[in-house]
Amino acid sequence: MRIGILGTGTVGLTFGTRLRNLDHDVTVGARELGNPRAVEWAEAHAAACGTFADAVSGAELVINATAGQYAVDALEMAGGNPALAGKVLLDVSNPLDFSTGEMRLSVCNTDSVGEQIQRAFPDARVVKSLNTVNGSVMVEPSLVPGAHTMFVAGNDADAKRVVVGLLGEFGWAAKDVLDLGDITGSRGMEMYLPLWVSILRAVDGNLAFNIKVVEG
Amino acid sequence: MRIGILGTGTVGLTFGTRLRNLDHDVTVGARELGNPRAVEWAEAHAAACGTFADAVSGAELVINATAGQYAVDALEMAGGNPALAGKVLLDVSNPLDFSTGEMRLSVCNTDSVGEQIQRAFPDARVVKSLNTVNGSVMVEPSLVPGAHTMFVAGNDADAKRVVVGLLGEFGWAAKDVLDLGDITGSRGMEMYLPLWVSILRAVDGNLAFNIKVVEG
Repeated sequence: MRIGILGTGTVGLTFGTRLRNLDHDVTVGARELGNPRAVEWAEAHAAACGTFADAVSGAELVINATAGQYAVDALEMAGGNPALAGKVLLDVSNPLDFSTGEMRLSVCNTDSVGEQIQRAFPDARVVKSLNTVNGSVMVEPSLVPGAHTMFVAGNDADAKRVVVGLLGEFGWAAKDVLDLGDITGSRGMEMYLPLWVSILRAVDGNLAFNIKVVEG
Repeated sequence: MRIGILGTGTVGLTFGTRLRNLDHDVTVGARELGNPRAVEWAEAHAAACGTFADAVSGAELVINATAGQYAVDALEMAGGNPALAGKVLLDVSNPLDFSTGEMRLSVCNTDSVGEQIQRAFPDARVVKSLNTVNGSVMVEPSLVPGAHTMFVAGNDADAKRVVVGLLGEFGWAAKDVLDLGDITGSRGMEMYLPLWVSILRAVDGNLAFNIKVVEG
């Protein structure tokens, strides 16, 4: 699959490396052309790099791995609704805002980044997933032993199937993927983040954790 | 133990019944004296009922089972800081607000009900717990099979020990209780609620579910 990744931070390049190992055709996109980190990574992994627009153009699947509060801006720079129309857009971002010195979400409660993206780009087929675990676990769920749960939310059933297929390539068993319905489900997935951070502290900083939904 | 319960809704009376079955001395408190539901329940369970102040007076442990957005008001009516001073105050409430027609939290992101209560009543020993599961599961965790996780947060280590002891009487194994640190941990525990509601829908309304933290 031809996959474009927006964002050249740790999460973006973690996706890039895993997707190259799975033999996908990858372009990572940065805010500015010639981003040294992206260039270096692309050379080392036989992948392409360019602008946000370069990453989206020609991609069958777009992964938003930018910081959540800048996601709509980044996707606008990538060409907006015309460029994204019909494409599956996997949003793995979180609206983490540390500008006040303590962690808060830049949007929550009555809205979410997933919903903002779907509203801003109505012809994109937005699927929220993977934001509830650390980047390493996103692409290698076996870092956490046994069964544990990944959520998906989005308005387009076919787009969710594509994403669940990609999750399967990463190692997420279909039985462990829980469909939360339409894109408003991203609200709960993003608002889980403060609990995730508290759990991370309680497990002494071990990033290889997740939650499992257990049913009676 | 002499336990006072604030709130005569389903959660309050579920606690009352379970605590009476465990042979604790229980007083349920309502906003107004003579609340018919409370009177009827108390008669049937050889327990006492009265005002919020009656429930707090003489209690060694107070359980706040009122709606989160009214919790501080209810505790103020119960006598406020002088009445609560030194007492363990287990807050199981959630700030659910349906006044706009869709579910939202009345406080979140930079604050929480647990923190509001601790600030308003600085001499109470507030512990947040149990709000992350349905009332039936709170007092009967075996409704969900196998191991699953309960969180506690609070500033007072001894108060947390008292609460973990009570959780043990309900059936929560100590190894499944995860201490999230001080009362600011209640922020994540309350912000988990939108995800809880989404999961509830995804499991077709089966209230007997919880999450388990799985670590690599």
